[in-house]
Amino acid sequence: MEELSFWVGIIASAAFAITGVLAISDRGVDLFGVLVLGIITAIGGGTIRDVILGVPVFWADAPIYILVAAIASIITFYAESTLSQPQLYKAILYIDGLGAALFGIQGADKAWHYDFGGSAAAIILVVVTAIGGGLIRDVLAGRKTLLMSYELYAIPVSLGCMLYVLLLNYFPEHAIVGSIACIVLIFAFRSAAIYWNLKVPVIFISRKK
Amino acid sequence: MEELSFWVGIIASAAFAITGVLAISDRGVDLFGVLVLGIITAIGGGTIRDVILGVPVFWADAPIYILVAAIASIITFYAESTLSQPQLYKAILYIDGLGAALFGIQGADKAWHYDFGGSAAAIILVVVTAIGGGLIRDVLAGRKTLLMSYELYAIPVSLGCMLYVLLLNYFPEHAIVGSIACIVLIFAFRSAAIYWNLKVPVIFISRKK
Amino acid sequence: MEELSFWVGIIASAAFAITGVLAISDRGVDLFGVLVLGIITAIGGGTIRDVILGVPVFWADAPIYILVAAIASIITFYAESTLSQPQLYKAILYIDGLGAALFGIQGADKAWHYDFGGSAAAIILVVVTAIGGGLIRDVLAGRKTLLMSYELYAIPVSLGCMLYVLLLNYFPEHAIVGSIACIVLIFAFRSAAIYWNLKVPVIFISRKK
Repeated sequence: MEELSFWVGIIASAAFAITGVLAISDRGVDLFGVLVLGIITAIGGGTIRDVILGVPVFWADAPIYILVAAIASIITFYAESTLSQPQLYKAILYIDGLGAALFGIQGADKAWHYDFGGSAAAIILVVVTAIGGGLIRDVLAGRKTLLMSYELYAIPVSLGCMLYVLLLNYFPEHAIVGSIACIVLIFAFRSAAIYWNLKVPVIFISRKK
Repeated sequence: MEELSFWVGIIASAAFAITGVLAISDRGVDLFGVLVLGIITAIGGGTIRDVILGVPVFWADAPIYILVAAIASIITFYAESTLSQPQLYKAILYIDGLGAALFGIQGADKAWHYDFGGSAAAIILVVVTAIGGGLIRDVLAGRKTLLMSYELYAIPVSLGCMLYVLLLNYFPEHAIVGSIACIVLIFAFRSAAIYWNLKVPVIFISRKK
Repeated sequence: MEELSFWVGIIASAAFAITGVLAISDRGVDLFGVLVLGIITAIGGGTIRDVILGVPVFWADAPIYILVAAIASIITFYAESTLSQPQLYKAILYIDGLGAALFGIQGADKAWHYDFGGSAAAIILVVVTAIGGGLIRDVLAGRKTLLMSYELYAIPVSLGCMLYVLLLNYFPEHAIVGSIACIVLIFAFRSAAIYWNLKVPVIFISRKK
């Protein structure tokens, strides 16, 4: 289980870096910038979470996450046209979605483990973990952030983790089953959004004037 | 006194979230984004302050701030046209100004309480508390930050808190009277700016080329 | 040595604030904004580093850095046309480059001293120290970040510090000689870029579509 989670984490880091770099491939960023933005996409959210929790950042003693993100960023820089082919890109999106689900639930577990605040505070931390890296990347690349993209990305992660936090609160003895169930739920929701190209419904969008 | 400050804090959080959401209502943000940005406007500045102070973030054990900001954000999303009516909006601006005054002085007290650095460092922290949340919101919403809006918002708060920090330094025995005086001073300055629609004088603005 | 490093730090802070304010002088920022952005450029990167390290921010007990940055920002605001004269501006760029080299190496030393993670983590911290302040300034001023400017600024600092981190890892007994050598190396690389107006080679830039 532990080992499985490690490997999913590694694959997710690579997927985050790849989607991160592809997202900014039209902004004319140089290789150094690509490295910085790819690594930030992969580790940014978890870093903010750890800083708010007041614990050592997760990559301090696990440089593997940085190395994987760095290598994935460089490969993406040079193999952009291959990786952005629709079939392959969709496959990467699914892995990215699985990674977001896993990292979100891990974030909730971490908040719980460190006895950080109540449910509301834990949910804030989880959302930060899931979308923080992507937000920083978009801001640094001068891109519209995902808050204005109507992508069903942060919403499945947030809802799934919210559910998990409530579950931890009321049925802590079912934490393991609950975490797996919530990961599956988030991934299913996100996969449906990728597969059918679903967006945030219009009634949840404020009119643009 | 304690209780008064609690209620002012709650009302201020709501006012911050409302003004925060109204400020980005023309950017086409969806309900999830509105929640994120409303909450960030309300708790962002205090969060950066606490992280720099190296103390637990203030909302970890006071989820009420998050809940109030969340509810205010959702209401604003759906009642935008009502809340942006000139009369009501002006009333909210005054509450927001009172909240900024209170939170700024609280920030100065916190820096003092934790014996954080000297006066210059405390002033930096106070300015961060007062404008940090709004800056993050503007950046995430792709909006010009208030540093380029010539609004007399951060300036009254900063000057008032600067005065309070000096006062704490030289007359710590008058802290309570001083804090009330500085809150009144900041609020009066900000109210004057709202009432007469005052802006930063042109001699303090660099030419735009 | 200690004292020399102090004075270089002071001069570098001033140089960072001056280049920071000149960089945004065409954005119509008011004096308050200029102060905020000048100070952020000077102390922002080191602040993120210290927060990630989990140690008190360096300016808490050294307000001199804030004061120098503040005064330099105000002077730059009013003496912009003088300071942006090509000859003088180039001189400031060299000082800024020396400061970036010194601060980068100091950052690496700090990560080492606090036994923060391995080499990969230390390099991330160093890059953050060197470019964090400038990135925040650009984002707040609504400017393209240096990641898209093809400036040879972060790259010399990162490469030099990477070398220094490896050196600390394998030859810790030569730390002092190594740090001086790396500072010289970074400064020489950056000076060459300023002198010959070198940019990031095109093969390291992704096509803009």
